[in-house]
Amino acid sequence: MPVPKTAKARATRARLLGEAAQLFSVKGYFATTVEDVMAKAGLTKGGFYAHFESKEALARAVVEHAAEMWAAKIVAHVMSFGEPRAQLHAVLDGYRAYAVDRTFEGGCFFVNLSTELDDQNDDLRRLLDDRFEQFRLLVMSIMESGKAAGVFAPDAPSDAVATLVVATLTGTMMLAKSSRRWERFDESNALLTRMITSFEIDPPSSPST
Amino acid sequence: MPVPKTAKARATRARLLGEAAQLFSVKGYFATTVEDVMAKAGLTKGGFYAHFESKEALARAVVEHAAEMWAAKIVAHVMSFGEPRAQLHAVLDGYRAYAVDRTFEGGCFFVNLSTELDDQNDDLRRLLDDRFEQFRLLVMSIMESGKAAGVFAPDAPSDAVATLVVATLTGTMMLAKSSRRWERFDESNALLTRMITSFEIDPPSSPST
Repeated sequence: MPVPKTAKARATRARLLGEAAQLFSVKGYFATTVEDVMAKAGLTKGGFYAHFESKEALARAVVEHAAEMWAAKIVAHVMSFGEPRAQLHAVLDGYRAYAVDRTFEGGCFFVNLSTELDDQNDDLRRLLDDRFEQFRLLVMSIMESGKAAGVFAPDAPSDAVATLVVATLTGTMMLAKSSRRWERFDESNALLTRMITSFEIDPPSSPST
Repeated sequence: MPVPKTAKARATRARLLGEAAQLFSVKGYFATTVEDVMAKAGLTKGGFYAHFESKEALARAVVEHAAEMWAAKIVAHVMSFGEPRAQLHAVLDGYRAYAVDRTFEGGCFFVNLSTELDDQNDDLRRLLDDRFEQFRLLVMSIMESGKAAGVFAPDAPSDAVATLVVATLTGTMMLAKSSRRWERFDESNALLTRMITSFEIDPPSSPST
């Protein structure tokens, strides 16, 4: 589908992506209808196909839109720091803020959609998994920069740290939403911080545990 | 609903619980119909209400049934060890086996249902969250036994360790299913083991990192 030509069409498309991201995050992909998305945007169903050829095409565009929302919240925060140790701590703080600020009404868009779709739509599963892999690569690249800068131990397992950080943050999102206790992030992040600190060379004199 | 009186009725009820647990884990709660459950058990829809008064009543019983399946896989493995450090490592191994053996076709029943329902059905959210809390309490009680036995440091934060372990294992399940890579558990569990070992008093001479 070509990029919409008029400013109005582009604005409508952007509104549909925003509404669909929120609906999918709360109700799920299968339970959300094209009518639901159009109604939430204050439009009638007929206009949908001027923007997307199918609900699945909408979902593919929504994954990209949600990734931009995620990056605006987390990557932007991480990149406001220049030093690898500070960047890694910003990953934890940034994800907590992404959760607590309810960037998505239903929690983490990617956790929710992946959990729903991983056995049911392989194309969307792969697209969603690409986003988790990008998250892992962000952590891994910070670890590698830190090793190059001599602030993380040369034998620190960057790949495993990346998996642990992403798994713990997404699992904590699930637990926090399930229990309605955002303080689960304080507990998880304190121990993740402790682990990250253990890979630092010349760690600060009072590591937060 | 009273306990079924005949052996045949009890067997049918147990079969419905087993089929529903698998269907809910793959398709989700809302997308699974009473007809789906009955058809998978080789029965017609009409008989359902002899066993459950509603789909939600079925779901409540399925949560209990799934918790028994979870405990048979994980708690039984943990309790086969008597020593707190070994028990804690058995939590990690046991959860990995629970995942890799596909105890539930759709991954973790509790992760999937909680992610779907946490904003949509508060009664079921609470029932599911009780199971995560039981999981946290299992880890916390092992930590406390270990402190009492002098094998974990007295100031080890049992509550935070419990949150971290449960969040990391459930998040790793999500990542492993999304990426089709069970080796994500090797990465997460190696670092969880490293963290647990750091709370041990007189740790073994070659901690696995």
